[in-house]
Amino acid sequence: MNTTSTDLLVVGSVAYDTVETPLATAERILGGSGSFFSVAASYFCKPGVVAVVGDDFDPAHEALLRDAGVDLTGLQHEPGETFFWRGRYDADLMSRTSLATDLGVFADFRPHIPDTYVNTPYLFLANIAPELQLSVLEQVSGASFIGLDTMDFWINGSRDALNKVLRRVDAVFINDEESQLLTGHQNVCKAARDLQAMGPDTVVIKRGEHGAIMFSNQDIFYCPAFPLESVKDPTGAGDSFAGGFMGYLAETRDARTANLRRAAAVGTVMASFAVEDFSLAGLQSAKRDLIIERFDALRTLTSIENLSF
Amino acid sequence: MNTTSTDLLVVGSVAYDTVETPLATAERILGGSGSFFSVAASYFCKPGVVAVVGDDFDPAHEALLRDAGVDLTGLQHEPGETFFWRGRYDADLMSRTSLATDLGVFADFRPHIPDTYVNTPYLFLANIAPELQLSVLEQVSGASFIGLDTMDFWINGSRDALNKVLRRVDAVFINDEESQLLTGHQNVCKAARDLQAMGPDTVVIKRGEHGAIMFSNQDIFYCPAFPLESVKDPTGAGDSFAGGFMGYLAETRDARTANLRRAAAVGTVMASFAVEDFSLAGLQSAKRDLIIERFDALRTLTSIENLSF
Repeated sequence: MNTTSTDLLVVGSVAYDTVETPLATAERILGGSGSFFSVAASYFCKPGVVAVVGDDFDPAHEALLRDAGVDLTGLQHEPGETFFWRGRYDADLMSRTSLATDLGVFADFRPHIPDTYVNTPYLFLANIAPELQLSVLEQVSGASFIGLDTMDFWINGSRDALNKVLRRVDAVFINDEESQLLTGHQNVCKAARDLQAMGPDTVVIKRGEHGAIMFSNQDIFYCPAFPLESVKDPTGAGDSFAGGFMGYLAETRDARTANLRRAAAVGTVMASFAVEDFSLAGLQSAKRDLIIERFDALRTLTSIENLSF
Repeated sequence: MNTTSTDLLVVGSVAYDTVETPLATAERILGGSGSFFSVAASYFCKPGVVAVVGDDFDPAHEALLRDAGVDLTGLQHEPGETFFWRGRYDADLMSRTSLATDLGVFADFRPHIPDTYVNTPYLFLANIAPELQLSVLEQVSGASFIGLDTMDFWINGSRDALNKVLRRVDAVFINDEESQLLTGHQNVCKAARDLQAMGPDTVVIKRGEHGAIMFSNQDIFYCPAFPLESVKDPTGAGDSFAGGFMGYLAETRDARTANLRRAAAVGTVMASFAVEDFSLAGLQSAKRDLIIERFDALRTLTSIENLSF
């Protein structure tokens, strides 16, 4: 049996983003699902990233991830350009338009899981082709809790492979539109029940500034977003949520209902740090005591005392 | 000093609606802010309605309100047609288009507050012209807690009068778009702080299926919507929320933070009953024990245990 160097593995992207918001534009900043997820998770466990970068990838960015405590054994280097995305956010920061998507070396990405990772207990399949997600599932045989992200492109174009992935995961993290596309239900309760029937016991519907609603077996949990006076860049919020969620599970090794609720709250807190600045700067500004402070504030935000007629 | 026959007064509309949803159309059903508000409140106190109806108003509908426990001393009858609205909801039931708005006798509505109402302690100014809301404030001198609703039409067209009303109320109930229009802030925290500076200590931002967020002095409370598998007609949800909120306050006579949070949860529960059927049928199907059951379910929905690192 191999030794496990990490507690939590994410397979996704490490990329460069140019992000335009109504207030500022940030050029070629470090992004990608693997980056946001792993840095968010790094506050709770030792995460590893499997992704691919080109020969334009700045060693300083590799150092940034490593310094955050991310294991980069699985970061593949290939000749060519690193995945580049350029997007523009609307005034309300809720919707965005993709202006450029240059896949570069990501177009031929074939996730290779290093031997030291095959028994990693917590695995997150970030938003990549379902066929590649299946190949990861074949390689990581020791995972006890598997999370999944996907998007409309794969729901429409690779539904058979995606259905196979869904049958093998424990939790799926998607937004309202994706849940409607997958199930045909506008109603979130009906959509979640159908999604659970497709495989995962836990379905997390992400709703941006409206928070997230989690269906876990019979339990329904509503977690509002953390109220912020200033949001600078929403990019990476969903991956930071998943990173906080899975990182907390990997630390506590408890997937019972009460702890899944805590995990969703921790994910919400990590997303709140992520959106306060561009790239990974918001997540990097988090500290363990600040995370606990926001977690407690989130508990207070929704707390209701018993009726007192 | 006059005796007070009611605990809670609403000044608004009693109307006929034709509602088209993707699944059904209901013709000339009883609606209006005063109807939804008062029937929702009737589970907690003795509400009275000040509104106007035409000579086409069906005595059976008057009986329906009276049987629900609503005091109709202030229901004015005028020659002409009752306010009629026809609207169509989109597939997601979140947005709607007004197809017809025939004001009828409502065009010349001048709220006359019966003598028995002038010392009513709880007052709700539903969505009518701010000038009329001011005239109500002049007549109801004994109110200790005043709630307010308004809409984009008055925000754009009667801002000066609306500002005067805002300075004199304790709580305002509006949606995201209205809060942005009033303050110029997209950010809900900033918008709420500005609204508080305009007068009301309590600002409730209603967000449909995403629930409501309440800013009360320094307190921030997030109340999700009650998860429902089936929503038949969203009409009246906001007025039912306000009716539950104000009705619960009128019953408990306690406007401290913890009780305002309970009131918002009670409002959420009453809105959940309202949208389960057309007209007032959903609200009428509520019972005190069902209300308490949903209140407890709402508490459970958001509850998070302490961190257990």
